[in-house]
Amino acid sequence: MVPSSPRVVVKVDLKKKPWQQTQPLHNRWHPEIPSVAEVRANEFFRVEMIDAMGGIVKDDDSSSDIKFADLSTTHHLSGPIRVVDEDGVAAKPGDLLVVEICNLGPLPGDEWGYTASFDRENGGGFLTDHFPCATKAIWYFEGIYAYSPHIPGVRFPGLTHPGVIGTAPSMELLRIWNERERQLEESDHKSLTLCEVVHQRPLACLPTTKGCLLGSIEEGTPEWERMANEAARTLPGRENGGNCDIKNLSRGSKIYLPVFVEGANLSTGDMHFSQGDGEISFCGAIEMSGFLELKCEIIRNGMQEYLTPMGPTPLHVNPIFEIGPVEPRFSEWLVFEGISVDESGRQHYLDATVAYKRAVLNAIDYLFKFGYSKEQVYLLLSCCPCEGRLSGIVDSPNAVATLAIPIAIFDQDIRPKTRKVPVGPRIVRKPDVLKSTYDGKLPITKNPSSST
Amino acid sequence: MVPSSPRVVVKVDLKKKPWQQTQPLHNRWHPEIPSVAEVRANEFFRVEMIDAMGGIVKDDDSSSDIKFADLSTTHHLSGPIRVVDEDGVAAKPGDLLVVEICNLGPLPGDEWGYTASFDRENGGGFLTDHFPCATKAIWYFEGIYAYSPHIPGVRFPGLTHPGVIGTAPSMELLRIWNERERQLEESDHKSLTLCEVVHQRPLACLPTTKGCLLGSIEEGTPEWERMANEAARTLPGRENGGNCDIKNLSRGSKIYLPVFVEGANLSTGDMHFSQGDGEISFCGAIEMSGFLELKCEIIRNGMQEYLTPMGPTPLHVNPIFEIGPVEPRFSEWLVFEGISVDESGRQHYLDATVAYKRAVLNAIDYLFKFGYSKEQVYLLLSCCPCEGRLSGIVDSPNAVATLAIPIAIFDQDIRPKTRKVPVGPRIVRKPDVLKSTYDGKLPITKNPSSST
Amino acid sequence: MVPSSPRVVVKVDLKKKPWQQTQPLHNRWHPEIPSVAEVRANEFFRVEMIDAMGGIVKDDDSSSDIKFADLSTTHHLSGPIRVVDEDGVAAKPGDLLVVEICNLGPLPGDEWGYTASFDRENGGGFLTDHFPCATKAIWYFEGIYAYSPHIPGVRFPGLTHPGVIGTAPSMELLRIWNERERQLEESDHKSLTLCEVVHQRPLACLPTTKGCLLGSIEEGTPEWERMANEAARTLPGRENGGNCDIKNLSRGSKIYLPVFVEGANLSTGDMHFSQGDGEISFCGAIEMSGFLELKCEIIRNGMQEYLTPMGPTPLHVNPIFEIGPVEPRFSEWLVFEGISVDESGRQHYLDATVAYKRAVLNAIDYLFKFGYSKEQVYLLLSCCPCEGRLSGIVDSPNAVATLAIPIAIFDQDIRPKTRKVPVGPRIVRKPDVLKSTYDGKLPITKNPSSST
Amino acid sequence: MVPSSPRVVVKVDLKKKPWQQTQPLHNRWHPEIPSVAEVRANEFFRVEMIDAMGGIVKDDDSSSDIKFADLSTTHHLSGPIRVVDEDGVAAKPGDLLVVEICNLGPLPGDEWGYTASFDRENGGGFLTDHFPCATKAIWYFEGIYAYSPHIPGVRFPGLTHPGVIGTAPSMELLRIWNERERQLEESDHKSLTLCEVVHQRPLACLPTTKGCLLGSIEEGTPEWERMANEAARTLPGRENGGNCDIKNLSRGSKIYLPVFVEGANLSTGDMHFSQGDGEISFCGAIEMSGFLELKCEIIRNGMQEYLTPMGPTPLHVNPIFEIGPVEPRFSEWLVFEGISVDESGRQHYLDATVAYKRAVLNAIDYLFKFGYSKEQVYLLLSCCPCEGRLSGIVDSPNAVATLAIPIAIFDQDIRPKTRKVPVGPRIVRKPDVLKSTYDGKLPITKNPSSST
Repeated sequence: MVPSSPRVVVKVDLKKKPWQQTQPLHNRWHPEIPSVAEVRANEFFRVEMIDAMGGIVKDDDSSSDIKFADLSTTHHLSGPIRVVDEDGVAAKPGDLLVVEICNLGPLPGDEWGYTASFDRENGGGFLTDHFPCATKAIWYFEGIYAYSPHIPGVRFPGLTHPGVIGTAPSMELLRIWNERERQLEESDHKSLTLCEVVHQRPLACLPTTKGCLLGSIEEGTPEWERMANEAARTLPGRENGGNCDIKNLSRGSKIYLPVFVEGANLSTGDMHFSQGDGEISFCGAIEMSGFLELKCEIIRNGMQEYLTPMGPTPLHVNPIFEIGPVEPRFSEWLVFEGISVDESGRQHYLDATVAYKRAVLNAIDYLFKFGYSKEQVYLLLSCCPCEGRLSGIVDSPNAVATLAIPIAIFDQDIRPKTRKVPVGPRIVRKPDVLKSTYDGKLPITKNPSSST
Repeated sequence: MVPSSPRVVVKVDLKKKPWQQTQPLHNRWHPEIPSVAEVRANEFFRVEMIDAMGGIVKDDDSSSDIKFADLSTTHHLSGPIRVVDEDGVAAKPGDLLVVEICNLGPLPGDEWGYTASFDRENGGGFLTDHFPCATKAIWYFEGIYAYSPHIPGVRFPGLTHPGVIGTAPSMELLRIWNERERQLEESDHKSLTLCEVVHQRPLACLPTTKGCLLGSIEEGTPEWERMANEAARTLPGRENGGNCDIKNLSRGSKIYLPVFVEGANLSTGDMHFSQGDGEISFCGAIEMSGFLELKCEIIRNGMQEYLTPMGPTPLHVNPIFEIGPVEPRFSEWLVFEGISVDESGRQHYLDATVAYKRAVLNAIDYLFKFGYSKEQVYLLLSCCPCEGRLSGIVDSPNAVATLAIPIAIFDQDIRPKTRKVPVGPRIVRKPDVLKSTYDGKLPITKNPSSST
Repeated sequence: MVPSSPRVVVKVDLKKKPWQQTQPLHNRWHPEIPSVAEVRANEFFRVEMIDAMGGIVKDDDSSSDIKFADLSTTHHLSGPIRVVDEDGVAAKPGDLLVVEICNLGPLPGDEWGYTASFDRENGGGFLTDHFPCATKAIWYFEGIYAYSPHIPGVRFPGLTHPGVIGTAPSMELLRIWNERERQLEESDHKSLTLCEVVHQRPLACLPTTKGCLLGSIEEGTPEWERMANEAARTLPGRENGGNCDIKNLSRGSKIYLPVFVEGANLSTGDMHFSQGDGEISFCGAIEMSGFLELKCEIIRNGMQEYLTPMGPTPLHVNPIFEIGPVEPRFSEWLVFEGISVDESGRQHYLDATVAYKRAVLNAIDYLFKFGYSKEQVYLLLSCCPCEGRLSGIVDSPNAVATLAIPIAIFDQDIRPKTRKVPVGPRIVRKPDVLKSTYDGKLPITKNPSSST
Repeated sequence: MVPSSPRVVVKVDLKKKPWQQTQPLHNRWHPEIPSVAEVRANEFFRVEMIDAMGGIVKDDDSSSDIKFADLSTTHHLSGPIRVVDEDGVAAKPGDLLVVEICNLGPLPGDEWGYTASFDRENGGGFLTDHFPCATKAIWYFEGIYAYSPHIPGVRFPGLTHPGVIGTAPSMELLRIWNERERQLEESDHKSLTLCEVVHQRPLACLPTTKGCLLGSIEEGTPEWERMANEAARTLPGRENGGNCDIKNLSRGSKIYLPVFVEGANLSTGDMHFSQGDGEISFCGAIEMSGFLELKCEIIRNGMQEYLTPMGPTPLHVNPIFEIGPVEPRFSEWLVFEGISVDESGRQHYLDATVAYKRAVLNAIDYLFKFGYSKEQVYLLLSCCPCEGRLSGIVDSPNAVATLAIPIAIFDQDIRPKTRKVPVGPRIVRKPDVLKSTYDGKLPITKNPSSST
């Protein structure tokens, strides 16, 4: 008899700053961040969230908001949400928390988003050695579809999902994270290249009080100080889920999250209207504010029942999930291959990351021939529903990665043609993405054979 | 008026050894291997091929054929096939060769295959540090379906494809391959770890006269000697396509291969009834003999028109392809995540290979709980139509890889259950895979927390 | 720079009666119903609508609202909406109006619906001779999913769509409709059987002033009187689209509607959360209030360019449409066949309607064996995303129709099993649908061989 | 250890006439036709079959073979095949026979087929009043694809299936068939119109000795004489399955057939490379010779367990089936609607057959505008994988049927365009179908408004 509107358990006000929200947000993982709401198993509830960059990116004509973005404050998460069973007993460490995403979308009145690449000195992206400048493209939504004034000639249905969804870590898990990431940070940076490029990218962003939001823990208090120095940054996905950026966590999917603290303390944020596998440009999904409509269940003792730790402690686990029944349907795909040989021609040993970089570079230069700028394609492949696959990982010395792009998102046929009339000038896809200057001094990787 | 049966341009006799075939096979890439047949553009033709291991693997009760396999002689390819246009003019370097796979399948009378993992001292596989023993599972085909007496409880439709398809390299390209792979081979092996494991795996199998088959070039002649010392091994995928092991090159797909020599000289082999992304156990597809029915077209000057070299020379390109319209359809997937933290708990920097290894290990231990042995799952995930994705490649320090497994291939519901009756003993999936002893002395990687 | 929230051009207030809405609704087709809003080509706009029964059906414990429903007042449509091109010039007769459904869904706060069958004396349904009673089931929505307290054991994602969408007819077209439907009405009722059953169902509901709403035309005025006697009822789909009840008119679909009056005058209503092909129980979709987000384009002179009249005048056309890219994905279907032999065993001549009736009856009796009541299945097959196909229409004397049901919507495996343990009592799916008495005197068709 | 090639249980020789085959064929249903082979449950076996017309249709330049075809001899079936369980005990009346189609295809060396419409005086087709002439188109196969020299501009993957598959009827069932079809035949022909057209089409082809083949029962013997006068013709689908012409009975599908005689006596024939829903032109699939690879299981007492008779006897049942996992995948569909108003403008009462006829006519006239002849489209829609749906069957007086056509099968974009350049002459799709004269005197139905 009761209409089934979901109960709104976290509400945001987009006119307010992240730290001004009535229900305080948080941008760190810590077991002691107080929960802001409680839900029962099988209750249908709604969580709203602000966008990943906390409202600093504007629908305007400049990419300087991206260039000078403060990355210490990203991913303002909604929650934590305490989960109890139908008898009111809280989820316990060792349980599995089942989160069903019943629905999600942009917030009414805020139906737009952005895709960007950060400046090489300030975050970068997968191809930051080729594309060191901050760039930005705005996307508008028309229901299921997105289009961009900065990347004309494409329009596609979104595979909308939260970039971040996870449970709170226990203190022990937090210590494991901080320890292993500190070891990485303290290793020789020169050896920590990605695809043989010395990156200026963040390695393992360690806890810092700068920009730290811990929910209702008041900034400046001793408790806040202590927690801020312990709390994990939200950038990477980890054992608790977190910023997994998995594009298939969309409508109808079910996520099985390990529970590390009493109540599970579920947090979520970083909504994506759409994202390609890899989210290559880093700020690469169509970032937006949004809502999730969720149902939770608790599988008592589920961690032991279903997960196997993969590492030295019982906490070294990963979530699993089921894909939902409503995803955009595409039949025709053009696929680009990459092998683990880099742009200089050097052979790498079964390195899937190098192979995927090459597949992406191949795709960018291919689509460039159809009138897009390379920056347009870089952002497009970050956010459109393309699939990145580890096709071969055993055939020494070449890993083979593939990038499959749905043909239907383009307003032209991008397939090679056998019976070609003489090639005329391509339609130049204007206007271009918004672009800032790169003021750093790192060399830009040039493909010796590439077209301009 | 003429029925459209394809013209058989390469025929094999499964009762003969690879080197005894009427149309000689080859197991190296070299521009001077003489073509064995010629086809015209738009002609519909058929190519038969023996299995990847050249008939040495038997449908019997032992895995010693795998344990002692000679890997210097794998991939006996059918071809090269010279391609000319409708006026009889051969494909030229710089053209694109369009190969449409109209149909493919096992050879009549030989409807079975095998999936195996090599011994760690003799080829290994992606998880050879965990699974150092040679193992083998036989698969029988019932039309579109495969089932194995060694992995009971699963049956699935194949996504059949050739593991190897490629054009002949030019001498210049051959020199590039040999040079870069020699540099890799000559680097310090200790630094060439895969997922931090010192591998005994082949690094970059360099040219060798051992086991070399060069088509109609007679073994032992000076010409053969010279060519055998130049000819590239077939193990990795490269600029010419080759052993890409891309599971989606199935019925109806179109491959755009660069042409490096006059006539294109197309070769193919290593038929797979089915393979999962990554082909993780190395001999990991369902290997079989088979046939391809093909049509070729030539896009004149297509390399310049459509491909962009990615490296120091115009030859540094990769093929592209379109996916065909007939693939097995699955709606429900259980997905395992992995992050770039290894089994010892060590943090790696955005390493997709480590992340995928972890996703696979998670899946193996999960399915182990449903009654399969870990070796059964290792082989199953090598050959069933599972999808390996590079979900996140930018969120330092964790790359996120996912492995999606179709639920419908199991005879039990493998999803986690919320309302579980007390866990009884699982059904043990007997018999198990065929398994040899590992006689080497390398330490076996143990997950400290894993169930036995 | 302007966020792309759709402009709301028709707003409804669910607390008000249909005739009390600020923007007046209409439940008839007539060219002179004044438009309530104007949109430009390519403008993104939103239309809200009340449910098909105008709010009289309640989320309560009784089906008497259905039993005594006044069917003269159904389908309160939102609109008409006048469409102009980007220069402000109205659509003209002879144009095609392209309507893209960018998004749709239930109205926030009203996320529930109902499926019902009418009493045989008051509307009936496809199987009213078997199921003469009014029945009702309530559905609650959890995002993409619907479940019913009255049909336990099923839950499915909706393929949401408007049951009614159409342009205003011209006076000439209206006359054609009234004329041909009057001829039908005036023929011998006994000959107008459906599947050999003398129906009490409405044949051709002719214009009537009873319950007539004509938008802003004030009731009781001479103009209203005249128009009410001319205006076509909304029950059937016709040349202008209208109540086509096509389940695939969902997110991302594009409808090409003929334009008969200046401005096109688009109206829509009768939102369905989900419906099966045929909408067999008549009030058979999951009926709800809802919203559409639309974009229109005008193809000038498109009727002549793309449509061919099929009948005596240029107005005898039908709309065409494209299916959208986001529909629930199912892989496994159980399919029931029907041939054109009726329940008495009588042979009909290539009658697809009889064949489909038999396929539906077969499915009902099959699922009855799994613990559902027949009324539960009747309503379920009306509203779940099942597919009704005309498989064979030429093999005299039997038409063959098929009904395909997605297996995944059930919480049990409904496939026949080869290795069956002895059949125990089935789980009875309680509670049942809400059911009224049938007080009429028509005989109920009994399948002589059916289980109770 | 035994390779799993299927055992060939029925072999055909295409160089021989139907009545000359070593394993005798049959073209009637009768319980006493002796079985030609026996298979065990779970055995994997192969059945070959000749084409529906028994080899009389040639790959030539004339349609006179179609015009003068003798329809009394169609559907030469392979079988009957007796099925026993794993203990050798035969299937019994009351069981369900599960037939899994593991694979199927054309016979090697005979990879071509034909689609035809019969002369109106000799069989006709669904639209025989519009298209009274015999027509024919030849199709050639390239693996999964078919193309026709007579319908240029289309190429599509087949959804291959047997048109006829069924079990032998019991004598009682045979009597039911003959009785009800005789009653139909004896009714007034004038009342047996289809879509208001007095057809010359076969109504209910009753038993006849003419052209009768009864397997190994020798023609002319008293037994043959008796049986030939009892045996049911194969044209319609019936309780035993038979000529259901369901396009989805393809690779991997499972059919549950009722068993009426000891051993089940499975027969099959009438292979279709591809067919659209409805098979509208009657000889409308791509007819070919072919093979099936099958596995059977027996569900003991399955008729009572799973089927419910729908009619006066326990024999009034219909088969059910599951759709297989490998069907051509299409994402984009153009859909045509039809309502139950005929070409003269007359209103019919909820007649799905009339509605489907109109949808088909709409599609034909639409595609005619793209350069095809109407006969080309008539045959194309008979054989391409298009979907015919009963969208609405309750909205008096209009049934709504839809015909969905996959866009990807055309070499041009057949969607309506909003921004059209002035319409030039269309590409005429030459050559046309092969066409005979119509020498009858029945009036041809003309759509008063149609283009030529």
